[in-house]
Amino acid sequence: MTRIRLGMVGGGNDAFIGGVHRIASRIDDRFELVAGALSSTPEKAAASGKALGLAADRAYGSFEEMAETEAARDDGIEAVSIVTPNHVHFPAAKAFLDRGIHVICDKPLTATQEDAEAMKKAVADSKALFILTHNYTGYPLVRQARQMVENGDLGQIRVVQAEYPQDWLTDPVETEGVKQAEWRTDPARSGAGGAVGDIGTHAYNLACFVTGLKGAELAADLQSFGAGRRLDDNAHVILRFDGGARGMLWCSQVAPGNENGLRLRVYGARGGLDWAQENPNELWFTPHGEATRRITRMGAGASDAANAVSRIPPGHPEGYLEGFATIYSAAADAIRAVQGGADPDTALGLLPGISAGLDGMGFIRACVESSAQNAAWVTL
Amino acid sequence: MTRIRLGMVGGGNDAFIGGVHRIASRIDDRFELVAGALSSTPEKAAASGKALGLAADRAYGSFEEMAETEAARDDGIEAVSIVTPNHVHFPAAKAFLDRGIHVICDKPLTATQEDAEAMKKAVADSKALFILTHNYTGYPLVRQARQMVENGDLGQIRVVQAEYPQDWLTDPVETEGVKQAEWRTDPARSGAGGAVGDIGTHAYNLACFVTGLKGAELAADLQSFGAGRRLDDNAHVILRFDGGARGMLWCSQVAPGNENGLRLRVYGARGGLDWAQENPNELWFTPHGEATRRITRMGAGASDAANAVSRIPPGHPEGYLEGFATIYSAAADAIRAVQGGADPDTALGLLPGISAGLDGMGFIRACVESSAQNAAWVTL
Amino acid sequence: MTRIRLGMVGGGNDAFIGGVHRIASRIDDRFELVAGALSSTPEKAAASGKALGLAADRAYGSFEEMAETEAARDDGIEAVSIVTPNHVHFPAAKAFLDRGIHVICDKPLTATQEDAEAMKKAVADSKALFILTHNYTGYPLVRQARQMVENGDLGQIRVVQAEYPQDWLTDPVETEGVKQAEWRTDPARSGAGGAVGDIGTHAYNLACFVTGLKGAELAADLQSFGAGRRLDDNAHVILRFDGGARGMLWCSQVAPGNENGLRLRVYGARGGLDWAQENPNELWFTPHGEATRRITRMGAGASDAANAVSRIPPGHPEGYLEGFATIYSAAADAIRAVQGGADPDTALGLLPGISAGLDGMGFIRACVESSAQNAAWVTL
Amino acid sequence: MTRIRLGMVGGGNDAFIGGVHRIASRIDDRFELVAGALSSTPEKAAASGKALGLAADRAYGSFEEMAETEAARDDGIEAVSIVTPNHVHFPAAKAFLDRGIHVICDKPLTATQEDAEAMKKAVADSKALFILTHNYTGYPLVRQARQMVENGDLGQIRVVQAEYPQDWLTDPVETEGVKQAEWRTDPARSGAGGAVGDIGTHAYNLACFVTGLKGAELAADLQSFGAGRRLDDNAHVILRFDGGARGMLWCSQVAPGNENGLRLRVYGARGGLDWAQENPNELWFTPHGEATRRITRMGAGASDAANAVSRIPPGHPEGYLEGFATIYSAAADAIRAVQGGADPDTALGLLPGISAGLDGMGFIRACVESSAQNAAWVTL
Repeated sequence: MTRIRLGMVGGGNDAFIGGVHRIASRIDDRFELVAGALSSTPEKAAASGKALGLAADRAYGSFEEMAETEAARDDGIEAVSIVTPNHVHFPAAKAFLDRGIHVICDKPLTATQEDAEAMKKAVADSKALFILTHNYTGYPLVRQARQMVENGDLGQIRVVQAEYPQDWLTDPVETEGVKQAEWRTDPARSGAGGAVGDIGTHAYNLACFVTGLKGAELAADLQSFGAGRRLDDNAHVILRFDGGARGMLWCSQVAPGNENGLRLRVYGARGGLDWAQENPNELWFTPHGEATRRITRMGAGASDAANAVSRIPPGHPEGYLEGFATIYSAAADAIRAVQGGADPDTALGLLPGISAGLDGMGFIRACVESSAQNAAWVTL
Repeated sequence: MTRIRLGMVGGGNDAFIGGVHRIASRIDDRFELVAGALSSTPEKAAASGKALGLAADRAYGSFEEMAETEAARDDGIEAVSIVTPNHVHFPAAKAFLDRGIHVICDKPLTATQEDAEAMKKAVADSKALFILTHNYTGYPLVRQARQMVENGDLGQIRVVQAEYPQDWLTDPVETEGVKQAEWRTDPARSGAGGAVGDIGTHAYNLACFVTGLKGAELAADLQSFGAGRRLDDNAHVILRFDGGARGMLWCSQVAPGNENGLRLRVYGARGGLDWAQENPNELWFTPHGEATRRITRMGAGASDAANAVSRIPPGHPEGYLEGFATIYSAAADAIRAVQGGADPDTALGLLPGISAGLDGMGFIRACVESSAQNAAWVTL
Repeated sequence: MTRIRLGMVGGGNDAFIGGVHRIASRIDDRFELVAGALSSTPEKAAASGKALGLAADRAYGSFEEMAETEAARDDGIEAVSIVTPNHVHFPAAKAFLDRGIHVICDKPLTATQEDAEAMKKAVADSKALFILTHNYTGYPLVRQARQMVENGDLGQIRVVQAEYPQDWLTDPVETEGVKQAEWRTDPARSGAGGAVGDIGTHAYNLACFVTGLKGAELAADLQSFGAGRRLDDNAHVILRFDGGARGMLWCSQVAPGNENGLRLRVYGARGGLDWAQENPNELWFTPHGEATRRITRMGAGASDAANAVSRIPPGHPEGYLEGFATIYSAAADAIRAVQGGADPDTALGLLPGISAGLDGMGFIRACVESSAQNAAWVTL
Repeated sequence: MTRIRLGMVGGGNDAFIGGVHRIASRIDDRFELVAGALSSTPEKAAASGKALGLAADRAYGSFEEMAETEAARDDGIEAVSIVTPNHVHFPAAKAFLDRGIHVICDKPLTATQEDAEAMKKAVADSKALFILTHNYTGYPLVRQARQMVENGDLGQIRVVQAEYPQDWLTDPVETEGVKQAEWRTDPARSGAGGAVGDIGTHAYNLACFVTGLKGAELAADLQSFGAGRRLDDNAHVILRFDGGARGMLWCSQVAPGNENGLRLRVYGARGGLDWAQENPNELWFTPHGEATRRITRMGAGASDAANAVSRIPPGHPEGYLEGFATIYSAAADAIRAVQGGADPDTALGLLPGISAGLDGMGFIRACVESSAQNAAWVTL
């Protein structure tokens, strides 16, 4: 199968997430990066393009130029990855969606609710696919957890505990020249949510993805512990789901000793599950009344859903990049499918799209509103 | 030092916690059990007394009889352990307090707020000590955690995450003849709180003990998932502490795969701590910006506060009974001290007493009130 | 049931293991310490006796005196605990065995092979029981492991991996006033084995206890890394068992980061087991071709053999002292049984006795001989 | 930097390791696969080539043909990956080395000692580089462990414990159609070593890589537990290193519950290290007398040597494929360096080459010889 021609917006030399997307796109050899608007600074864009081996005329100074030029080329890009700060997601995505170029976009969907609505419309109006990189859903044992819930292995779901602690904003590093911290604590670039937008959306998405539940309402208490910080860096959230399940979500960027402590625990009337991102090759399953099982990726007890997105045998850990690559490779399948005439929604399958993006924006909105009202309940 | 003569109320043949108290009282050889009102059924009380080697005339049919008779003996009991269901705590404690006999009482303090107030008065009116077995505070590394917070090793505390999941009420076993489940799910014997009273109070006590913080207000969402269950079996609580720290508390008795998953994580501006009851001989400490340390009981890095309540060298695990024994042995020290004329409050030292009991009752009340008001904030 | 009257040889104020034996004897309330020859220094013996609440006339200056005097009393001791350095085990045990007083003795059996043979004879000639405190066999999940092997849950045993690393002799602390280190590195008091005698015998005993296998031969490479140390502080041993199973045993006292890292892994044609002493409340079992199970003490999956020696519910850790107490309580049962006329061997049941002691001495002898012959095979 | 043109010998559709090499070569975008002799069956070779997107005329039926043809092309391959069963390593490598094409070859070096000698000569006679994929040396924290030993953080090394248990040969699956098992248990294709060759060499290589020690002699006891199995599936090895350090190595393919349990523990006079492949993003370091540290990849405490081969921030696990990719990317650097005139040995740096390969062959030979002589010492 020939590789999909890929462009990238953002992801220049000093960005972290751009490199992740590029590696993820290569792991299963389904994409070839051929164009980029890698920085909003033209010289930096050119230098980054050169470093990545792009042809000089395809290292663009702006995404608008890239969208227009590539759309006009016979060998123009088929898909674009958008890996910019949040406030650029919408204008960039729209430029490509409007031209029928498939979009793979970082989360959260947008910086503002207005942009989110506009994004929804842009996606609806386009024939191109829109894929949001809620990458943790690509881990094999997350797929298995979802399948087990769906199969009824846990019985009716009662309690969902999601958490995502980090510690990198313990000190006010946004005032000390840490670029990642600067834009993530800046409402103009990040939107209304700090930790809730950056990592809370991941935890919420994971909880919904695995359980298949829809959030009904939440009560949230947001804090900014970092001196002078303008966005939340810690959030405590109580969740109620449709159908009666209850949950808690904690996300923090000020919890020393935690790197990317995303963890999901799900409890039903017949069993429980426990999965943690930092050691993603094991899933703990307790059928109620029996000993807990350690299910390993590709090991005894691993399911079809997990094995389908695994690359190597058990005991050889697959990590974050492989989980991310699963999103990319599924995106490649979906793109080829719609190019072949398939129905877009069917083609997307388990891939997170505009709907997951809007759910995430709804989560941020509800957290911020609830906290502003002293943790009153807000409908999701 | 001669052993303290001890009596026991409750704790007959088929009770679990009575045996725990008896072992705990023996471990450091500071008590001798000489009398008991071990069951409210006189024949059972007599049989249990015989099995424990009590003299026949000191195996009483009621606590009232025991209090009266023992108080009149020259060699009467000096202290009594109360290990009954919650609703008996107050009348039993009062009978002994009024006669100057020291009381060691199970938590929560009482079944009702009225009893709690009355208990407060009974304690104030008595010269005897009142000790509440918040036994988890006896673990050596819990002592160390408290000392580290006090020393400022974590800086100003920001976030407190407490949880205590169990799974033994996943099914409605109270309808299947499980005695422990029967009274714990019965409002008449347990009081207004189910999981929040039984284990939530432990988690809350531990959080306050370690951090030295006082709870300011909370918002709680309580559920009863067990079919027909009359008390909560799962609770999600957001906490605000005096001074600005925030926290979450989750307790559950319907989370398959969890036995006694009490865990406390504390994060401050300069570091973080993580301790879990099921593996209590290790404490994880992260000075912000450095690698996480695994501190072991009596090992390198263990502090004076931990070592003072340890019995054996590192690598040989001390468990639940030893932690419980620390409460008993400290109680023995305190009793001998006040017998020698010491001030009661000074004698108690770190031992939980009436104040910790009232805090726990306040926690239960606030949880129940908040949940009844759709998780509104309630002052602690 | 009335308590057994117990004496103790060794275990004065500054000894570690004496206190362990005393706590272990009290946990299940089966013994009462009434006499002692707690130190070879008479004043220290008297002071220690007083601190422990012994009657002045039963705090003896020597074990010979205690044996003679107690044997003549109507209320004399029924059993004695010997907790001295190894070279005293035999003379002390003989003094009591010869008078029909039951002996509970620390391991290894003796300091020399000659003493071991003499001990064998003394036990054979006595009506009293001889019990060796291979205490790790008292852990509930060790009992379960043994039962599972016996039941055939692992199929035919193929591979046995035993290890017991410590780090307390990394530096030559025997020259720095550490009493425990002085006698344990002194051939006159410890015997021919250093680490192999002190902890290797525990690992070997555990391997044999769980698997039910008898060692056939071994090849050992012993080292002394501590400067000037006269006994081994690290040993690498290859094992061959009767029936074809193979194994390895590593013990070390110079492995920084290890406290009491006793661990046993057993692999058969149909499954594998993994247990570690520092977290003794869990046992990992893999039926070949299925997911690994985490079996917890008293939890789902715990067996009769484990539950029979457990005191408290799952999730509340029992530790080293409780495992040790199981040996003591089983000793009490055995003593009462033989006092009632039972056959001694039947009465001992799973308790380690002279045979386990001789096996341990054989292990030490074989290790030392093999290593002296450049790790040649030596029959066990 | 332009990509290196890569060919591959072996690695057709149903091989596992070929896919691993291809992903590893792509992760850092340093190679482009342009030719292959992917199977010894021509039709399968052609089909595999097509599936991988190779030009039809570059999907060769044999490695000889590929070597000859590619060497003659201006745009011929610059390097070749050899991922066949062991007995093909030498003839294939020689074909390319003789033509100046750089070779990246799977371990162990060859199936026979004769081939190993011949390989040594072929490498010496060629200007091309020879790189052996001892991929575990590419894990960031393995690099850090090596650096810490080199820095003296552990003091003089005393004890080295290496192990690599698996369970996939517990049953005689080589008779049940499992292709991987067939050739790995066949002396004609694997050579004299079974488990010792397949995984023992990895453990031995890792031990030497991290400690910088050279093996002096060993005593080995090899077994074949699988019914009718012709090569060892379990090996117990005692090691002596130059300079006095001692060690043990256990490898097994019949240990149920173990997937790829490669673990290395190193103890010196001043500290200890512990690393396990299945959770490779953490390294445990104990400075003697201090609490154990959990060092994480890219986290606080991670060293330059580790960070230099890391791609993503801490807490997002990198796995087996990334470690493997590090070998490939270093190979790319080395190839470009020698193409630019650098000295080959300098260019290789930490990359395993012919010398590591010969060490591994020496390890296999010594294990087999020692075991044949009843575990007598054999010089390495």
